[in-house]
Amino acid sequence: MVRSLTVAYRGTDYAGWQRQSNATTVQQRLEEALGAFLNQNVKVVGAGRTDAGVHARGQVVHVVGDPRDPNRSTGGDLPDTAFVHGTNRHLPPDIRVLGASRMAEGFHARKSALSKIYTYQVIPTRVLSPLDSMFAAAVDPRVRAEPMKEAIVGLVGRHDFTAFALAGGAHSDPHRSILRAQLRTSGAGHLIFEFEADGFLRGMVRSLVGTLLEVGLGKRTPQEFGELLAGSPRSEAGPTAPPQGLVLERVFYPSGTAE
Amino acid sequence: MVRSLTVAYRGTDYAGWQRQSNATTVQQRLEEALGAFLNQNVKVVGAGRTDAGVHARGQVVHVVGDPRDPNRSTGGDLPDTAFVHGTNRHLPPDIRVLGASRMAEGFHARKSALSKIYTYQVIPTRVLSPLDSMFAAAVDPRVRAEPMKEAIVGLVGRHDFTAFALAGGAHSDPHRSILRAQLRTSGAGHLIFEFEADGFLRGMVRSLVGTLLEVGLGKRTPQEFGELLAGSPRSEAGPTAPPQGLVLERVFYPSGTAE
Repeated sequence: MVRSLTVAYRGTDYAGWQRQSNATTVQQRLEEALGAFLNQNVKVVGAGRTDAGVHARGQVVHVVGDPRDPNRSTGGDLPDTAFVHGTNRHLPPDIRVLGASRMAEGFHARKSALSKIYTYQVIPTRVLSPLDSMFAAAVDPRVRAEPMKEAIVGLVGRHDFTAFALAGGAHSDPHRSILRAQLRTSGAGHLIFEFEADGFLRGMVRSLVGTLLEVGLGKRTPQEFGELLAGSPRSEAGPTAPPQGLVLERVFYPSGTAE
Repeated sequence: MVRSLTVAYRGTDYAGWQRQSNATTVQQRLEEALGAFLNQNVKVVGAGRTDAGVHARGQVVHVVGDPRDPNRSTGGDLPDTAFVHGTNRHLPPDIRVLGASRMAEGFHARKSALSKIYTYQVIPTRVLSPLDSMFAAAVDPRVRAEPMKEAIVGLVGRHDFTAFALAGGAHSDPHRSILRAQLRTSGAGHLIFEFEADGFLRGMVRSLVGTLLEVGLGKRTPQEFGELLAGSPRSEAGPTAPPQGLVLERVFYPSGTAE
Protein backbone atom coordinates (compact mmCIF):
# COMPACT_ATOMS: atom_id res chain seq x y z
CA MET A 1 0.00 0.00 0.00
CA VAL A 2 1.13 3.52 -0.84
CA ARG A 3 -0.58 6.46 0.86
CA SER A 4 -1.40 9.42 -1.41
CA LEU A 5 -2.57 12.83 -0.25
CA THR A 6 -4.35 15.67 -2.03
CA VAL A 7 -2.86 18.92 -0.79
CA ALA A 8 -3.89 22.57 -1.28
CA TYR A 9 -1.70 25.55 -0.49
CA ARG A 10 -1.21 29.26 -0.94
CA GLY A 11 2.29 29.53 -2.35
CA THR A 12 2.60 33.21 -1.40
CA ASP A 13 5.01 32.74 1.50
CA TYR A 14 6.95 29.73 0.17
CA ALA A 15 9.99 29.28 -2.03
CA GLY A 16 7.97 26.75 -4.05
CA TRP A 17 7.10 23.10 -3.57
CA GLN A 18 10.49 21.36 -3.69
CA ARG A 19 12.71 21.16 -0.61
CA GLN A 20 15.64 23.61 -0.55
CA SER A 21 18.52 23.94 1.84
CA ASN A 22 18.14 27.69 2.44
CA ALA A 23 14.42 28.55 2.15
CA THR A 24 11.09 27.29 3.46
CA THR A 25 9.11 25.18 1.01
CA VAL A 26 5.73 23.46 1.04
CA GLN A 27 7.29 19.99 0.82
CA GLN A 28 9.35 20.72 3.93
CA ARG A 29 6.33 21.93 5.93
CA LEU A 30 4.29 18.92 4.85
CA GLU A 31 7.07 16.47 5.72
CA GLU A 32 7.48 18.14 9.11
CA ALA A 33 3.73 17.88 9.80
CA LEU A 34 3.57 14.23 8.73
CA GLY A 35 6.65 13.55 10.83
CA ALA A 36 5.07 15.15 13.89
CA PHE A 37 1.83 13.23 13.33
CA LEU A 38 3.48 9.82 12.70
CA ASN A 39 6.36 10.49 15.09
CA GLN A 40 9.16 9.63 12.65
CA ASN A 41 10.97 11.03 9.61
CA VAL A 42 8.69 11.11 6.56
CA LYS A 43 9.51 11.88 2.91
CA VAL A 44 6.94 12.74 0.25
CA VAL A 45 7.08 13.07 -3.55
CA GLY A 46 4.81 15.64 -5.24
CA ALA A 47 3.25 15.38 -8.69
CA GLY A 48 4.07 18.98 -9.64
CA ARG A 49 7.12 21.00 -8.61
CA THR A 50 5.39 24.36 -8.33
CA ASP A 51 7.65 27.42 -8.28
CA ALA A 52 7.91 30.10 -5.60
CA GLY A 53 4.61 31.93 -5.13
CA VAL A 54 2.57 29.41 -7.15
CA HIS A 55 -0.53 27.89 -5.51
CA ALA A 56 -2.12 24.44 -5.57
CA ARG A 57 -5.76 23.47 -5.21
CA GLY A 58 -5.06 19.80 -5.90
CA GLN A 59 -1.38 18.88 -5.61
CA VAL A 60 -0.99 15.10 -5.18
CA VAL A 61 1.83 13.53 -3.19
CA HIS A 62 2.73 10.03 -2.12
CA VAL A 63 4.38 9.15 1.16
CA VAL A 64 7.68 7.36 0.57
CA GLY A 65 7.61 4.06 2.43
CA ASP A 66 10.26 3.40 5.07
CA PRO A 67 12.11 0.25 3.80
CA ARG A 68 12.44 -1.01 7.39
CA ASP A 69 8.75 -0.56 8.19
CA PRO A 70 6.71 0.78 5.27
CA ASN A 71 3.47 0.20 7.14
CA ARG A 72 4.49 2.68 9.80
CA SER A 73 5.76 5.46 7.48
CA THR A 74 2.56 5.46 5.43
CA GLY A 75 0.31 5.59 8.46
CA GLY A 76 -0.24 1.85 8.67
CA ASP A 77 -3.88 1.01 9.11
CA LEU A 78 -4.98 4.55 10.02
CA PRO A 79 -8.23 5.47 8.29
CA ASP A 80 -7.90 8.16 5.61
CA THR A 81 -9.81 10.76 7.64
CA ALA A 82 -7.55 10.27 10.68
CA PHE A 83 -4.56 10.75 8.38
CA VAL A 84 -6.06 14.00 7.00
CA HIS A 85 -7.00 15.58 10.33
CA GLY A 86 -3.90 14.32 12.17
CA THR A 87 -1.61 15.92 9.57
CA ASN A 88 -3.59 19.17 9.38
CA ARG A 89 -3.18 19.69 13.12
CA HIS A 90 0.55 20.20 12.48
CA LEU A 91 0.28 22.34 9.32
CA PRO A 92 0.25 26.15 9.06
CA PRO A 93 -3.09 27.60 7.85
CA ASP A 94 -1.82 28.17 4.30
CA ILE A 95 -1.34 24.41 3.69
CA ARG A 96 -4.09 21.81 4.08
CA VAL A 97 -4.38 18.11 3.34
CA LEU A 98 -7.81 17.79 1.70
CA GLY A 99 -7.92 14.02 1.36
CA ALA A 100 -5.95 10.78 1.67
CA SER A 101 -6.18 7.52 -0.29
CA ARG A 102 -4.60 4.10 -0.32
CA MET A 103 -2.99 3.40 -3.69
CA ALA A 104 -1.74 0.15 -5.18
CA GLU A 105 1.93 -0.76 -4.62
CA GLY A 106 4.18 1.05 -7.11
CA PHE A 107 2.07 4.24 -7.24
CA HIS A 108 4.28 7.31 -7.74
CA ALA A 109 2.66 10.76 -7.53
CA ARG A 110 4.76 12.21 -10.39
CA LYS A 111 5.63 9.20 -12.56
CA SER A 112 2.17 7.62 -12.46
CA ALA A 113 0.40 10.88 -13.45
CA LEU A 114 -1.31 10.89 -16.85
CA SER A 115 -1.89 14.62 -16.96
CA LYS A 116 -2.14 17.77 -14.85
CA ILE A 117 -4.34 20.86 -15.04
CA TYR A 118 -3.01 24.33 -14.31
CA THR A 119 -5.06 27.53 -14.38
CA TYR A 120 -3.83 31.11 -14.57
CA GLN A 121 -6.08 34.04 -13.61
CA VAL A 122 -5.66 37.50 -15.12
CA ILE A 123 -7.74 40.60 -14.32
CA PRO A 124 -7.88 43.48 -16.81
CA THR A 125 -7.56 46.51 -14.53
CA ARG A 126 -5.36 49.48 -13.69
CA VAL A 127 -5.57 48.81 -9.93
CA LEU A 128 -5.87 45.21 -8.73
CA SER A 129 -8.09 44.79 -5.67
CA PRO A 130 -6.32 43.27 -2.63
CA LEU A 131 -9.15 40.71 -2.54
CA ASP A 132 -7.92 39.41 -5.91
CA SER A 133 -4.20 40.16 -5.89
CA MET A 134 -3.09 37.02 -4.07
CA PHE A 135 -4.47 34.77 -6.81
CA ALA A 136 -4.36 36.84 -10.00
CA ALA A 137 -2.17 39.12 -12.08
CA ALA A 138 -3.31 42.48 -13.44
CA VAL A 139 -3.16 43.21 -17.15
CA ASP A 140 -3.71 46.35 -19.23
CA PRO A 141 -7.53 46.69 -19.49
CA ARG A 142 -7.22 47.14 -23.26
CA VAL A 143 -6.47 43.39 -23.57
CA ARG A 144 -8.88 41.53 -25.90
CA ALA A 145 -9.93 37.94 -25.27
CA GLU A 146 -10.79 37.08 -28.90
CA PRO A 147 -7.27 36.95 -30.41
CA MET A 148 -6.05 35.01 -27.36
CA LYS A 149 -8.84 32.47 -27.85
CA GLU A 150 -7.82 32.17 -31.49
CA ALA A 151 -4.17 31.57 -30.52
CA ILE A 152 -4.85 29.16 -27.69
CA VAL A 153 -6.67 26.53 -29.77
CA GLY A 154 -3.46 25.91 -31.71
CA LEU A 155 -1.78 24.69 -28.53
CA VAL A 156 -3.62 21.38 -28.43
CA GLY A 157 -1.36 18.56 -29.65
CA ARG A 158 2.31 17.67 -29.28
CA HIS A 159 4.77 20.56 -29.68
CA ASP A 160 8.33 21.63 -28.94
CA PHE A 161 7.96 24.12 -26.05
CA THR A 162 11.59 25.34 -26.00
CA ALA A 163 10.29 28.91 -26.46
CA PHE A 164 8.30 28.59 -23.21
CA ALA A 165 10.81 26.87 -20.91
CA LEU A 166 12.55 28.77 -18.13
CA ALA A 167 16.30 28.37 -17.91
CA GLY A 168 17.10 26.15 -14.96
CA GLY A 169 14.63 23.45 -15.85
CA ALA A 170 16.79 20.55 -17.05
CA HIS A 171 14.58 19.00 -19.72
CA SER A 172 16.15 16.45 -22.03
CA ASP A 173 13.08 16.54 -24.30
CA PRO A 174 11.23 19.85 -24.76
CA HIS A 175 8.17 18.19 -26.32
CA ARG A 176 4.91 18.07 -24.37
CA SER A 177 1.36 17.12 -25.33
CA ILE A 178 -1.37 19.63 -24.55
CA LEU A 179 -4.68 17.83 -24.14
CA ARG A 180 -6.80 20.92 -23.53
CA ALA A 181 -6.19 24.66 -23.64
CA GLN A 182 -8.88 27.26 -23.15
CA LEU A 183 -9.57 30.78 -22.04
CA ARG A 184 -12.80 31.50 -20.22
CA THR A 185 -14.17 34.77 -18.93
CA SER A 186 -15.82 34.96 -15.51
CA GLY A 187 -18.86 37.10 -14.80
CA ALA A 188 -16.63 39.73 -13.18
CA GLY A 189 -14.52 40.02 -16.36
CA HIS A 190 -11.64 37.94 -15.01
CA LEU A 191 -9.78 35.89 -17.63
CA ILE A 192 -8.96 32.30 -16.70
CA PHE A 193 -6.49 30.33 -18.80
CA GLU A 194 -6.69 26.56 -18.36
CA PHE A 195 -4.14 24.04 -19.62
CA GLU A 196 -4.14 20.27 -19.35
CA ALA A 197 -0.99 18.48 -20.50
CA ASP A 198 0.92 15.23 -19.99
CA GLY A 199 3.65 17.36 -18.46
CA PHE A 200 4.89 20.93 -18.25
CA LEU A 201 8.38 22.35 -18.69
CA ARG A 202 9.60 24.66 -15.92
CA GLY A 203 7.85 28.06 -16.25
CA MET A 204 5.84 26.85 -19.26
CA VAL A 205 2.35 27.99 -18.22
CA ARG A 206 3.57 31.40 -17.09
CA SER A 207 5.48 32.08 -20.32
CA LEU A 208 2.55 30.81 -22.41
CA VAL A 209 0.30 33.27 -20.55
CA GLY A 210 2.83 36.12 -20.84
CA THR A 211 3.00 35.55 -24.60
CA LEU A 212 -0.75 35.08 -25.03
CA LEU A 213 -1.31 38.42 -23.27
CA GLU A 214 0.91 40.03 -25.93
CA VAL A 215 -1.47 38.54 -28.50
CA GLY A 216 -4.40 39.99 -26.55
CA LEU A 217 -2.76 43.41 -26.62
CA GLY A 218 -2.07 43.27 -30.36
CA LYS A 219 1.71 43.02 -29.98
CA ARG A 220 1.79 39.74 -31.93
CA THR A 221 -0.74 37.85 -34.01
CA PRO A 222 -2.25 34.43 -33.24
CA GLN A 223 -0.30 33.12 -36.26
CA GLU A 224 3.01 34.40 -34.89
CA PHE A 225 2.15 32.76 -31.56
CA GLY A 226 1.60 29.42 -33.33
CA GLU A 227 4.97 29.64 -35.07
CA LEU A 228 6.74 29.62 -31.67
CA LEU A 229 5.60 26.01 -31.11
CA ALA A 230 8.21 24.45 -33.41
CA GLY A 231 11.25 24.90 -31.19
CA SER A 232 11.84 28.66 -31.33
CA PRO A 233 14.35 29.92 -28.75
CA ARG A 234 13.05 31.32 -25.42
CA SER A 235 14.05 34.84 -26.47
CA GLU A 236 11.37 34.91 -29.21
CA ALA A 237 8.45 34.36 -26.80
CA GLY A 238 6.97 36.91 -24.40
CA PRO A 239 7.67 37.55 -20.72
CA THR A 240 6.99 35.09 -17.90
CA ALA A 241 3.76 36.08 -16.12
CA PRO A 242 4.10 36.52 -12.33
CA PRO A 243 3.62 33.45 -10.10
CA GLN A 244 0.57 34.51 -8.06
CA GLY A 245 -1.92 33.90 -10.92
CA LEU A 246 -0.91 30.24 -11.30
CA VAL A 247 -2.68 27.30 -9.60
CA LEU A 248 -1.97 23.56 -9.91
CA GLU A 249 -5.61 22.46 -10.02
CA ARG A 250 -5.66 18.72 -10.46
CA VAL A 251 -3.59 15.64 -11.30
CA PHE A 252 -5.04 12.68 -13.21
CA TYR A 253 -3.99 9.03 -12.79
CA PRO A 254 -4.98 5.84 -14.62
CA SER A 255 -8.09 4.26 -13.18
CA GLY A 256 -7.20 1.32 -10.99
CA THR A 257 -4.23 2.97 -9.26
CA ALA A 258 -6.23 3.24 -6.03
CA GLU A 259 -5.95 0.15 -3.86
CA MET B 1 -15.27 70.15 -3.10
CA VAL B 2 -14.94 66.99 -1.00
CA ARG B 3 -12.71 64.18 -2.23
CA SER B 4 -14.13 60.66 -1.85
CA LEU B 5 -12.18 57.45 -2.35
CA THR B 6 -13.28 53.88 -3.00
CA VAL B 7 -10.99 51.60 -1.03
CA ALA B 8 -10.55 47.80 -1.01
CA TYR B 9 -8.67 45.86 1.64
CA ARG B 10 -7.99 42.46 3.08
CA GLY B 11 -8.81 42.87 6.76
CA THR B 12 -6.82 39.77 7.77
CA ASP B 13 -3.90 41.60 9.38
CA TYR B 14 -5.77 44.63 10.74
CA ALA B 15 -7.64 45.40 13.94
CA GLY B 16 -10.51 46.68 11.81
CA TRP B 17 -11.21 49.93 9.99
CA GLN B 18 -11.40 52.48 12.80
CA ARG B 19 -8.25 54.06 14.28
CA GLN B 20 -7.15 52.64 17.64
CA SER B 21 -4.43 53.75 19.98
CA ASN B 22 -2.84 50.31 20.42
CA ALA B 23 -3.32 48.37 17.17
CA THR B 24 -2.85 48.89 13.44
CA THR B 25 -6.02 49.67 11.51
CA VAL B 26 -6.90 50.29 7.89
CA GLN B 27 -7.90 53.91 8.56
CA GLN B 28 -4.48 54.57 10.08
CA ARG B 29 -2.59 53.06 7.12
CA LEU B 30 -4.75 55.02 4.67
CA GLU B 31 -4.30 58.30 6.52
CA GLU B 32 -0.54 57.68 6.65
CA ALA B 33 -0.42 57.00 2.90
CA LEU B 34 -2.50 60.10 2.06
CA GLY B 35 -0.32 62.10 4.42
CA ALA B 36 2.85 60.90 2.71
CA PHE B 37 1.38 61.63 -0.73
CA LEU B 38 0.00 65.11 0.13
CA ASN B 39 2.82 65.90 2.55
CA GLN B 40 0.58 66.91 5.48
CA ASN B 41 -1.67 65.38 8.14
CA VAL B 42 -4.83 63.94 6.60
CA LYS B 43 -7.96 62.56 8.28
CA VAL B 44 -10.56 60.39 6.57
CA VAL B 45 -14.06 59.21 7.51
CA GLY B 46 -15.21 55.77 6.33
CA ALA B 47 -18.77 54.73 5.46
CA GLY B 48 -18.54 51.41 7.31
CA ARG B 49 -16.61 50.66 10.50
CA THR B 50 -15.58 47.12 9.61
CA ASP B 51 -14.39 44.94 12.52
CA ALA B 52 -11.04 43.18 12.89
CA GLY B 53 -10.48 40.65 10.10
CA VAL B 54 -13.37 41.90 7.94
CA HIS B 55 -12.63 42.82 4.30
CA ALA B 56 -13.87 45.53 1.95
CA ARG B 57 -14.25 45.49 -1.81
CA GLY B 58 -15.87 48.93 -1.90
CA GLN B 59 -15.42 50.90 1.31
CA VAL B 60 -16.02 54.62 0.66
CA VAL B 61 -14.23 57.37 2.57
CA HIS B 62 -14.11 61.11 2.36
CA VAL B 63 -11.05 63.19 3.07
CA VAL B 64 -11.72 65.67 5.88
CA GLY B 65 -10.90 69.16 4.64
CA ASP B 66 -8.26 71.18 6.45
CA PRO B 67 -10.15 74.31 7.68
CA ARG B 68 -7.05 76.44 7.00
CA ASP B 69 -6.60 75.12 3.45
CA PRO B 70 -9.25 72.59 2.40
CA ASN B 71 -8.01 72.64 -1.15
CA ARG B 72 -4.66 71.28 -0.07
CA SER B 73 -5.91 68.50 2.23
CA THR B 74 -8.24 67.11 -0.40
CA GLY B 75 -5.60 67.07 -3.10
CA GLY B 76 -6.54 70.42 -4.58
CA ASP B 77 -6.81 70.27 -8.31
CA LEU B 78 -5.07 66.90 -8.69
CA PRO B 79 -6.86 64.68 -11.20
CA ASP B 80 -8.60 61.64 -9.69
CA THR B 81 -6.16 59.17 -11.28
CA ALA B 82 -3.14 60.99 -9.85
CA PHE B 83 -4.82 60.87 -6.46
CA VAL B 84 -5.39 57.11 -6.80
CA HIS B 85 -1.90 56.18 -7.96
CA GLY B 86 -0.13 58.66 -5.68
CA THR B 87 -1.85 57.23 -2.61
CA ASN B 88 -1.35 53.60 -3.67
CA ARG B 89 2.40 54.14 -3.87
CA HIS B 90 2.40 54.59 -0.08
CA LEU B 91 -0.02 51.77 0.81
CA PRO B 92 0.81 48.16 1.75
CA PRO B 93 -0.32 45.56 -0.82
CA ASP B 94 -3.39 44.55 1.21
CA ILE B 95 -4.98 48.03 0.88
CA ARG B 96 -5.69 49.75 -2.44
CA VAL B 97 -7.49 52.91 -3.49
CA LEU B 98 -9.56 51.81 -6.49
CA GLY B 99 -10.97 55.20 -7.44
CA ALA B 100 -11.35 58.82 -6.44
CA SER B 101 -14.18 61.30 -7.07
CA ARG B 102 -15.00 64.93 -6.41
CA MET B 103 -18.18 65.23 -4.39
CA ALA B 104 -20.38 68.24 -3.71
CA GLU B 105 -19.67 70.28 -0.56
CA GLY B 106 -21.24 68.65 2.51
CA PHE B 107 -20.71 65.07 1.31
CA HIS B 108 -20.05 62.74 4.27
CA ALA B 109 -19.05 59.12 3.55
CA ARG B 110 -21.10 57.70 6.43
CA LYS B 111 -23.91 60.20 6.95
CA SER B 112 -24.70 60.69 3.24
CA ALA B 113 -24.93 56.93 2.57
CA LEU B 114 -28.37 55.62 1.61
CA SER B 115 -27.47 51.95 2.01
CA LYS B 116 -24.60 49.49 2.14
CA ILE B 117 -24.16 45.94 0.83
CA TYR B 118 -22.32 43.28 2.80
CA THR B 119 -21.72 39.70 1.65
CA TYR B 120 -20.72 36.70 3.73
CA GLN B 121 -19.25 33.57 2.13
CA VAL B 122 -19.64 30.12 3.66
CA ILE B 123 -18.26 26.85 2.29
CA PRO B 124 -19.83 23.54 3.34
CA THR B 125 -16.75 21.36 3.93
CA ARG B 126 -14.82 19.43 6.58
CA VAL B 127 -11.48 20.90 5.45
CA LEU B 128 -11.40 24.44 4.06
CA SER B 129 -8.88 24.94 1.24
CA PRO B 130 -6.21 27.59 1.95
CA LEU B 131 -7.22 29.17 -1.37
CA ASP B 132 -10.64 29.92 0.16
CA SER B 133 -9.93 30.28 3.87
CA MET B 134 -8.97 33.96 3.81
CA PHE B 135 -12.39 34.99 2.49
CA ALA B 136 -14.82 32.34 3.73
CA ALA B 137 -15.85 30.34 6.78
CA ALA B 138 -16.33 26.58 6.77
CA VAL B 139 -19.63 25.06 7.82
CA ASP B 140 -20.78 21.48 8.48
CA PRO B 141 -21.41 20.02 4.98
CA ARG B 142 -24.83 18.78 6.12
CA VAL B 143 -26.08 22.40 5.98
CA ARG B 144 -29.11 22.86 3.70
CA ALA B 145 -29.70 26.04 1.71
CA GLU B 146 -33.49 25.71 1.39
CA PRO B 147 -34.53 26.48 5.01
CA MET B 148 -32.04 29.37 5.08
CA LYS B 149 -33.59 30.78 1.89
CA GLU B 150 -37.00 30.48 3.53
CA ALA B 151 -35.78 32.32 6.64
CA ILE B 152 -33.86 35.05 4.85
CA VAL B 153 -36.82 36.45 2.89
CA GLY B 154 -38.43 37.48 6.17
CA LEU B 155 -35.56 39.87 6.84
CA VAL B 156 -36.65 42.43 4.27
CA GLY B 157 -38.33 45.38 5.96
CA ARG B 158 -37.82 47.36 9.15
CA HIS B 159 -37.04 45.29 12.27
CA ASP B 160 -35.60 45.51 15.77
CA PHE B 161 -32.19 43.81 15.49
CA THR B 162 -31.33 43.73 19.21
CA ALA B 163 -30.92 39.93 18.94
CA PHE B 164 -28.18 40.45 16.35
CA ALA B 165 -26.16 43.32 17.85
CA LEU B 166 -22.75 42.74 19.43
CA ALA B 167 -22.21 44.25 22.83
CA GLY B 168 -19.96 47.27 22.50
CA GLY B 169 -21.88 48.83 19.65
CA ALA B 170 -23.56 51.86 21.18
CA HIS B 171 -26.82 52.01 19.25
CA SER B 172 -29.55 54.24 20.55
CA ASP B 173 -32.05 52.73 18.13
CA PRO B 174 -31.77 49.00 17.27
CA HIS B 175 -34.11 49.29 14.27
CA ARG B 176 -32.68 48.94 10.77
CA SER B 177 -34.31 48.55 7.34
CA ILE B 178 -33.18 45.64 5.21
CA LEU B 179 -33.73 46.45 1.54
CA ARG B 180 -32.52 43.13 0.17
CA ALA B 181 -31.48 39.81 1.70
CA GLN B 182 -30.59 36.75 -0.32
CA LEU B 183 -28.63 33.55 -0.33
CA ARG B 184 -27.07 32.40 -3.58
CA THR B 185 -25.09 29.28 -4.34
CA SER B 186 -22.01 29.46 -6.54
CA GLY B 187 -21.09 26.76 -9.04
CA ALA B 188 -18.52 25.37 -6.60
CA GLY B 189 -21.20 24.95 -3.90
CA HIS B 190 -20.15 28.03 -1.94
CA LEU B 191 -23.00 29.82 -0.16
CA ILE B 192 -23.04 33.60 -0.43
CA PHE B 193 -25.30 35.64 1.84
CA GLU B 194 -25.99 39.18 0.65
CA PHE B 195 -27.59 41.95 2.71
CA GLU B 196 -28.41 45.51 1.72
CA ALA B 197 -29.62 47.80 4.51
CA ASP B 198 -29.83 51.47 5.42
CA GLY B 199 -27.42 50.68 8.25
CA PHE B 200 -26.05 47.77 10.25
CA LEU B 201 -25.64 47.34 14.00
CA ARG B 202 -22.21 46.21 15.19
CA GLY B 203 -21.76 42.48 14.42
CA MET B 204 -25.20 42.30 12.80
CA VAL B 205 -24.33 40.49 9.57
CA ARG B 206 -22.13 37.97 11.33
CA SER B 207 -24.76 37.10 13.95
CA LEU B 208 -27.47 36.93 11.26
CA VAL B 209 -25.28 34.45 9.36
CA GLY B 210 -24.43 32.45 12.50
CA THR B 211 -28.14 32.14 13.28
CA LEU B 212 -29.16 31.39 9.68
CA LEU B 213 -26.60 28.55 9.63
CA GLU B 214 -28.39 27.06 12.64
CA VAL B 215 -31.56 27.14 10.52
CA GLY B 216 -29.64 25.41 7.71
CA LEU B 217 -28.52 22.70 10.13
CA GLY B 218 -32.04 22.13 11.47
CA LYS B 219 -31.29 23.53 14.93
CA ARG B 220 -34.07 26.13 14.58
CA THR B 221 -36.90 26.66 12.13
CA PRO B 222 -37.32 29.58 9.71
CA GLN B 223 -40.34 30.61 11.83
CA GLU B 224 -38.25 30.73 15.02
CA PHE B 225 -35.66 32.79 13.15
CA GLY B 226 -38.36 35.29 12.15
CA GLU B 227 -39.55 35.64 15.76
CA LEU B 228 -36.11 37.00 16.76
CA LEU B 229 -36.75 40.14 14.68
CA ALA B 230 -39.06 41.78 17.22
CA GLY B 231 -36.45 42.78 19.78
CA SER B 232 -35.43 39.43 21.30
CA PRO B 233 -32.30 39.62 23.47
CA ARG B 234 -28.89 38.75 21.94
CA SER B 235 -28.79 35.52 23.96
CA GLU B 236 -31.67 34.03 21.98
CA ALA B 237 -29.92 34.27 18.60
CA GLY B 238 -27.07 32.06 17.35
CA PRO B 239 -23.31 32.57 17.45
CA THR B 240 -21.42 35.33 15.64
CA ALA B 241 -19.85 33.90 12.45
CA PRO B 242 -16.08 34.51 12.15
CA PRO B 243 -14.88 37.75 10.50
CA GLN B 244 -13.02 36.37 7.46
CA GLY B 245 -16.21 35.55 5.51
CA LEU B 246 -17.50 39.13 5.64
CA VAL B 247 -16.95 41.76 2.92
CA LEU B 248 -18.22 45.35 2.74
CA GLU B 249 -19.10 45.29 -0.96
CA ARG B 250 -20.58 48.65 -1.84
CA VAL B 251 -22.01 51.88 -0.47
CA PHE B 252 -24.84 53.74 -2.20
CA TYR B 253 -25.36 57.53 -2.19
CA PRO B 254 -28.12 59.75 -3.55
CA SER B 255 -27.57 60.66 -7.20
CA GLY B 256 -26.23 64.16 -7.50
CA THR B 257 -23.76 63.94 -4.61
CA ALA B 258 -20.86 63.87 -7.06
CA GLU B 259 -19.63 67.34 -7.99
